[in-house]
Amino acid sequence: MLLKHFFIGKIAHSSYLLAGKNCCAVIDPQRNVDVYITEARKMGVEITHILQTHLHADFVSGHMDLAEKTGARIYIAKSAQCSFDHVALTEGDSIELEDMLLQVLETPGHTPEHLSYVVIDKARSDSPIGVFVGDTLFVGDVGRPDLFPDMAEELAEKLYHSLHDKLLKLPDYVEVYPAHGAGSLCGRAMGAKWRSTIGYERNFNSALQFKDPSAFIKSLTEDMPPAPDHFSRCSDINRQGPALIDDLPTMEELGPSQFKERMSAANIALLDTRGYHAFAGQHIPGVWHLDLNGNFPTFAGWVLPTDKDILLIADDYRKALESNTWARRVGVDRIVGYLDGGMVAWAMAGFETSHINLTSAEDLHDMTTGATSFVLLDVRAPLEYADTHIKGAINIPVAELRTRHNELNKDKRIVLICSSGNRSTLGASILKQHGFNNVYNVAGGLTGYRAAGYSRECRICVNPHGSRFFTNFSEVKRHWDAE
Amino acid sequence: MLLKHFFIGKIAHSSYLLAGKNCCAVIDPQRNVDVYITEARKMGVEITHILQTHLHADFVSGHMDLAEKTGARIYIAKSAQCSFDHVALTEGDSIELEDMLLQVLETPGHTPEHLSYVVIDKARSDSPIGVFVGDTLFVGDVGRPDLFPDMAEELAEKLYHSLHDKLLKLPDYVEVYPAHGAGSLCGRAMGAKWRSTIGYERNFNSALQFKDPSAFIKSLTEDMPPAPDHFSRCSDINRQGPALIDDLPTMEELGPSQFKERMSAANIALLDTRGYHAFAGQHIPGVWHLDLNGNFPTFAGWVLPTDKDILLIADDYRKALESNTWARRVGVDRIVGYLDGGMVAWAMAGFETSHINLTSAEDLHDMTTGATSFVLLDVRAPLEYADTHIKGAINIPVAELRTRHNELNKDKRIVLICSSGNRSTLGASILKQHGFNNVYNVAGGLTGYRAAGYSRECRICVNPHGSRFFTNFSEVKRHWDAE
Amino acid sequence: MLLKHFFIGKIAHSSYLLAGKNCCAVIDPQRNVDVYITEARKMGVEITHILQTHLHADFVSGHMDLAEKTGARIYIAKSAQCSFDHVALTEGDSIELEDMLLQVLETPGHTPEHLSYVVIDKARSDSPIGVFVGDTLFVGDVGRPDLFPDMAEELAEKLYHSLHDKLLKLPDYVEVYPAHGAGSLCGRAMGAKWRSTIGYERNFNSALQFKDPSAFIKSLTEDMPPAPDHFSRCSDINRQGPALIDDLPTMEELGPSQFKERMSAANIALLDTRGYHAFAGQHIPGVWHLDLNGNFPTFAGWVLPTDKDILLIADDYRKALESNTWARRVGVDRIVGYLDGGMVAWAMAGFETSHINLTSAEDLHDMTTGATSFVLLDVRAPLEYADTHIKGAINIPVAELRTRHNELNKDKRIVLICSSGNRSTLGASILKQHGFNNVYNVAGGLTGYRAAGYSRECRICVNPHGSRFFTNFSEVKRHWDAE
Amino acid sequence: MLLKHFFIGKIAHSSYLLAGKNCCAVIDPQRNVDVYITEARKMGVEITHILQTHLHADFVSGHMDLAEKTGARIYIAKSAQCSFDHVALTEGDSIELEDMLLQVLETPGHTPEHLSYVVIDKARSDSPIGVFVGDTLFVGDVGRPDLFPDMAEELAEKLYHSLHDKLLKLPDYVEVYPAHGAGSLCGRAMGAKWRSTIGYERNFNSALQFKDPSAFIKSLTEDMPPAPDHFSRCSDINRQGPALIDDLPTMEELGPSQFKERMSAANIALLDTRGYHAFAGQHIPGVWHLDLNGNFPTFAGWVLPTDKDILLIADDYRKALESNTWARRVGVDRIVGYLDGGMVAWAMAGFETSHINLTSAEDLHDMTTGATSFVLLDVRAPLEYADTHIKGAINIPVAELRTRHNELNKDKRIVLICSSGNRSTLGASILKQHGFNNVYNVAGGLTGYRAAGYSRECRICVNPHGSRFFTNFSEVKRHWDAE
Repeated sequence: MLLKHFFIGKIAHSSYLLAGKNCCAVIDPQRNVDVYITEARKMGVEITHILQTHLHADFVSGHMDLAEKTGARIYIAKSAQCSFDHVALTEGDSIELEDMLLQVLETPGHTPEHLSYVVIDKARSDSPIGVFVGDTLFVGDVGRPDLFPDMAEELAEKLYHSLHDKLLKLPDYVEVYPAHGAGSLCGRAMGAKWRSTIGYERNFNSALQFKDPSAFIKSLTEDMPPAPDHFSRCSDINRQGPALIDDLPTMEELGPSQFKERMSAANIALLDTRGYHAFAGQHIPGVWHLDLNGNFPTFAGWVLPTDKDILLIADDYRKALESNTWARRVGVDRIVGYLDGGMVAWAMAGFETSHINLTSAEDLHDMTTGATSFVLLDVRAPLEYADTHIKGAINIPVAELRTRHNELNKDKRIVLICSSGNRSTLGASILKQHGFNNVYNVAGGLTGYRAAGYSRECRICVNPHGSRFFTNFSEVKRHWDAE
Repeated sequence: MLLKHFFIGKIAHSSYLLAGKNCCAVIDPQRNVDVYITEARKMGVEITHILQTHLHADFVSGHMDLAEKTGARIYIAKSAQCSFDHVALTEGDSIELEDMLLQVLETPGHTPEHLSYVVIDKARSDSPIGVFVGDTLFVGDVGRPDLFPDMAEELAEKLYHSLHDKLLKLPDYVEVYPAHGAGSLCGRAMGAKWRSTIGYERNFNSALQFKDPSAFIKSLTEDMPPAPDHFSRCSDINRQGPALIDDLPTMEELGPSQFKERMSAANIALLDTRGYHAFAGQHIPGVWHLDLNGNFPTFAGWVLPTDKDILLIADDYRKALESNTWARRVGVDRIVGYLDGGMVAWAMAGFETSHINLTSAEDLHDMTTGATSFVLLDVRAPLEYADTHIKGAINIPVAELRTRHNELNKDKRIVLICSSGNRSTLGASILKQHGFNNVYNVAGGLTGYRAAGYSRECRICVNPHGSRFFTNFSEVKRHWDAE
Repeated sequence: MLLKHFFIGKIAHSSYLLAGKNCCAVIDPQRNVDVYITEARKMGVEITHILQTHLHADFVSGHMDLAEKTGARIYIAKSAQCSFDHVALTEGDSIELEDMLLQVLETPGHTPEHLSYVVIDKARSDSPIGVFVGDTLFVGDVGRPDLFPDMAEELAEKLYHSLHDKLLKLPDYVEVYPAHGAGSLCGRAMGAKWRSTIGYERNFNSALQFKDPSAFIKSLTEDMPPAPDHFSRCSDINRQGPALIDDLPTMEELGPSQFKERMSAANIALLDTRGYHAFAGQHIPGVWHLDLNGNFPTFAGWVLPTDKDILLIADDYRKALESNTWARRVGVDRIVGYLDGGMVAWAMAGFETSHINLTSAEDLHDMTTGATSFVLLDVRAPLEYADTHIKGAINIPVAELRTRHNELNKDKRIVLICSSGNRSTLGASILKQHGFNNVYNVAGGLTGYRAAGYSRECRICVNPHGSRFFTNFSEVKRHWDAE
Repeated sequence: MLLKHFFIGKIAHSSYLLAGKNCCAVIDPQRNVDVYITEARKMGVEITHILQTHLHADFVSGHMDLAEKTGARIYIAKSAQCSFDHVALTEGDSIELEDMLLQVLETPGHTPEHLSYVVIDKARSDSPIGVFVGDTLFVGDVGRPDLFPDMAEELAEKLYHSLHDKLLKLPDYVEVYPAHGAGSLCGRAMGAKWRSTIGYERNFNSALQFKDPSAFIKSLTEDMPPAPDHFSRCSDINRQGPALIDDLPTMEELGPSQFKERMSAANIALLDTRGYHAFAGQHIPGVWHLDLNGNFPTFAGWVLPTDKDILLIADDYRKALESNTWARRVGVDRIVGYLDGGMVAWAMAGFETSHINLTSAEDLHDMTTGATSFVLLDVRAPLEYADTHIKGAINIPVAELRTRHNELNKDKRIVLICSSGNRSTLGASILKQHGFNNVYNVAGGLTGYRAAGYSRECRICVNPHGSRFFTNFSEVKRHWDAE
């Protein structure tokens, strides 16, 4: 038995290749399946099994691509009711892979059809050695049960039982292989460490300390971070079987004039993935800004329109390719062209541009004490805002700006802030799409502002639990109100 | 806390990068330290600590290179008495790395100065989360205590106590990070899996089932596989501080004539790292054969002379570089030139060559029933030979052929066999150096012979424990005698 | 105007990218067209024109692939009567590419439909600056007119006029861009230099010194080197439009058992592309041997059956891919699988093998003075044989062995020799397919034999012209007879 | 004889590898000599000769690095009086390289010690086949003789004779291999094509049409483009023998706080190589801006202080490495650190920043008709300005801004323009160093402005010769005055 771990950042996704001497299974594959094929070739094993723990909500999985390229079979819960050819699994089923046995546990909670796979290495013992838990259990956290709003309580209760009646029945020494790490929105506060053990989590995972289902349910259904728009979309794509990567449209190289002409068609959205400094300097009017170096895929899935073809502006060709790869990971499959030569070519073609103003921490401080009145718009999530914010800032989470922009006054100067400058630039690009022209962005965000020593202007709620995100919102509010 | 694992095959060496937010430690680094530097840069952390669990016997470690290139400090046991600048550790010491704590356990046994590092992730708990055990405990095995023949029993006893009184005192859920995996000669029968947990090993590691130290000691001091020659050499190199990679001589490109001229100098050895098929076809007289695709580094460290400059013949330039990298990993630092153009250029220069005969399984079978008498020489380890061999084969382990060649008759046809064809070719090259001219090699070895259906000619001792190597030799012999 | 040159070895093919500021033409593209697309992207130009000088005989061209991937138009002679969509050109046509003008000359001779393109850089002058001559004129040579045996004289005459009445009418300073360099079989004796000028060739190209057409014709129709079998095949493929690379079957990975099973099907040929040393050591019975490091594509096109699927044995996966790429360049499109794990896996599966004996120069010398009688079979081309050969050697060119094997006696020892050892191994593999079992191959060939100082055993005809291949065969024979 | 050409952009430098069967020469090597070593290895030849045509003024050459790494000898003019070990050449010397002969011509003019090497391929003829002309003759241009202001006329006269009495004495068909192509400041108006022939240049190179030395001299000494500061510096470095690349200081990774601390030391300059859009968005006060994607090396050599250590801000680590490589090519060897995490990390550290305003073509047009008065500062070279400029613009070439900034009024809004936006950003960064705070930059420059259709606001002098740069300035002025 040999286990290889694959990790992709941003969406913080872990997948695994579990190999015997000649065959192997891939668990929860990413969409770029060549990594598994190459690795299997290097190891001299054949990919024969593709195991899905569940219908992933936060990314488009590579099960169809991998099956197409290797001939391996796809295994997934019967209850997932998948459209593609697969082996439908239920509780108690087991899969043999040479001298390994994978036993199926139904562990609903994060999603209704969620499975876990308990691994037994028969060469060593008949007791379990590890368990692929998908998004049921994480390092320091558990899967969110609130992604299907109507079923949140019901799923939270199921999650409680999946954890306590199934996974925690396993011995302490069993290794835990989750499908996500720190940074994923499938949980609230995972650790950076990729793997753990049943015993360590049993003892030190706060979400597992609730003795009482109702408190557990409450903690996981109240004040949760928002779920991005694409979460339900991806689930469904994964159930239907995603389009094969090889069948997606290629991204056309478009010179400035061609690009401008394509822009004028109906059903076109523009996407700029350069850093926020360059975006601030100059951009094409009407564009969405999503910094490729930030949490690009999550926000791409979240805010970009799905009914339009997308034209891309990136730093260079390599970055354009990279942007497209990340976009496809969250099901944004319609990037059909990119601006050849980038913004430099655009400027030399003499076409129209726009810009926004970047302010440093110091500039913002000067502004707060200056004569010009302005709206300080904090676009972070409510929990982040609750933790710490600058006095006087109002809070509209960036994705909500798509509709809530009309709560703001176009005649006023709007200064956007987030933690670093990325989400606020996305917010600025949304406001500009809706006719706001007096828009500023705080480079470095609240992080820079506090680093510069201006924290006394912030309202800060120190979370008594130490870990900011684990705290639920009402606790924070209580603290805050008590000040 | 984030843990990255690095593995190199052949010597089956595991090293680790343990990172916090800004700093990281590298545990038991390999000699090619750029992999850590690149990874740390990608993660945005600085390498500040270099931790050695012990003086590695089977490879030259990269502690000096890594310290030179990063400015990080080296941590190692005080009792190792190292010559280079280092922090000397003893039981109870601890090292802080951001919110992690590494507690030092003295765990002698595999070597006298061996340490283990218990990791506590203070962000989650004050209880241990994992332990870097070096070569004390492996997945399914324990470290060999017999590498210092005079101290074998003493070390075996210490090992017993290091395991039972220290490592096994840790909770079941603690993760185990060893320095080797399957294939390493630092143990006898490790699993392919890279990591484990205290609880799983406590329950299912056969070496931990001895209730009584004396049985444990016996099992680890009798009938052990041989220790390659370089094991004591590498320990010492690691204690002194190995030469920096950048200071080693570059490998000169030598045309056939230059190569031939250099060959004639005193203190020159020749090394051919092509596959055994090509070697059989034609080679330079007097050369050592070590297939780069086989367990090259172990046998390079084991048999190659250390007091000579080495000239290399490889498939091509890329393979020559690769051969040199692997050789340096085991302290074979004196490869000073390679044959430019390889054996094709050599043949076109009209220089002298030699060859050996390859036989297939069928050829060997025909030979056994044929008229020509021959010696079937099995060059595998005694335990392998004990398990299964062809009736009538005599056994001289390949490394011993360096001296025991004179037990053989040069006038007879000698047919060498091992499990695959690699070690037997090495053996053939040794015999040819000593004037044997009627030498055959069995391609595919015993594996091919049995696959071809000739196993009824083999004496096979089915190991009652299933795992061939864990069984000790006397058990095998008993079985054998009972037939 | 910017001109980039692309060269691939073995078939010694030159292609060109001729760029203006925004657009470019590719002249005589190779089948792996990504090199042009990548280069054009780096230069920031669009590929708009694909220019063919003629229907290449020695390789399958990438015109269809490049047109498919870029939308560029294909330009070729009307008289080529191509099946695919193209612009049909005749004498006097011209093509504008920004400030460049390409004027079409009909220059039949090497082939009937051959065109040359005279380039004018209008930004500098209305006089020609260079000429794409395809296979009409080479550096130090001219194109062979004998590839269509029935038309050899007619084409040679046309070639004379194409050269003297058209190309040599251009000014001395005009640069000459041919489609081949040294090593190509489209000429007899090209220089290694890739380009030249009209004036230099006018003065120093021996083929252009004939004042009289009939002598020129004679020199190019008598005693020419043979034309490989695929030459007429490739012409036709290029006329029809080759299959797109993306549509060709992928090469399947086959384990030894699968491979063996596939071997037994009808219409299967086996191809081994390892070096001749490894092949001699051991190979699968019945295989064709073509060393990937030798002139692989030419002999692959020449001797491999075109009506069979081909199974491949190579050094490793990377070499298998490389073998397939080269095979496709000459229209060998049916490599459908390769032996995973190579000959080592084959041997460990215990399957049947064969081998041949390699001899060094010294061994051969000993043989010539030894007791065992043997046939020394020189498989080089007649002209090479005429130049120099070992006394007593008989000559059957390697490709002719496919039918002429029956001129040899199976009961005799056959020792094959060529210049290096590659063609003789191919010859040995052919003989073995026909039941010859007592086969030897001279490693290093005649080159090694002479280097070893055995040249007094050779009959050497020193060509009075210095350049061996330019000399025609009758001259050689005359010399020879005069000895 | 085989000739390989190597080209590096920006400084538009051509170097060559001239190979026989076993040996080769490198002519005018660039400083990153691994490209030659790798190529020679691939070709199977040894680098034995390093030939310098002259002491290059525009880049630091790799002769010392290449000699150190290969043992090859350096050949250069005796009159260069070089400090390092070399073979000193004078007129009439010749160098044998297998069957090639390189004859030395002294061709002073561009520099006093300039040599050309006439190549004879003795295998084909005793007449010359090509000539390495260095910076004496270019495609469509000749070398500038004005780089040593005191000797300009003298050198121009020598150049006339070098061209007419030596190079043009060669036959028309001789190939010309210059050391530069379009974009180099060693000439005024070279073609993009890399090579030419004596005959073509004789006929169509305007600089060779002067029948009379004095007119030629006048044309090359009046109204020449300025010579960057580093031109004399590089000559001298190349004479002394540049420091080996391996001996230069490595570039340290510096976090924002470390960077800020290092900034405060004396003798530190800051360099920002991001694109101008990002620079405009935000930058560190006091920095020099030089877009890595523009003509970075020329301006780096030209304007950066040579007596200071340089700290670098780049897009990312890869770009930082690339910036350093380019800087070293022009002798800027003191980049000692870079900002780890770039401007994003800087902003998140809350440190001080600055920005400039980017305007589009449309913005500039609006400004010209708007109420706010401003200075339109054209920072291109005088000849460019003379050709076309916006009415009312004043001209100070960007490098002169280093001293001429005090001709401008700090209280006024300054709008900088060049052809694209790069040089104007450099100019803006210089002005900001000197206390200008109201600074704008025109993105897309005059190119965008004219593309946007605002050319009627430009004064345009259509050069009667078509080629803008060949025209000398007085002609332009005459035209201009005649309007």
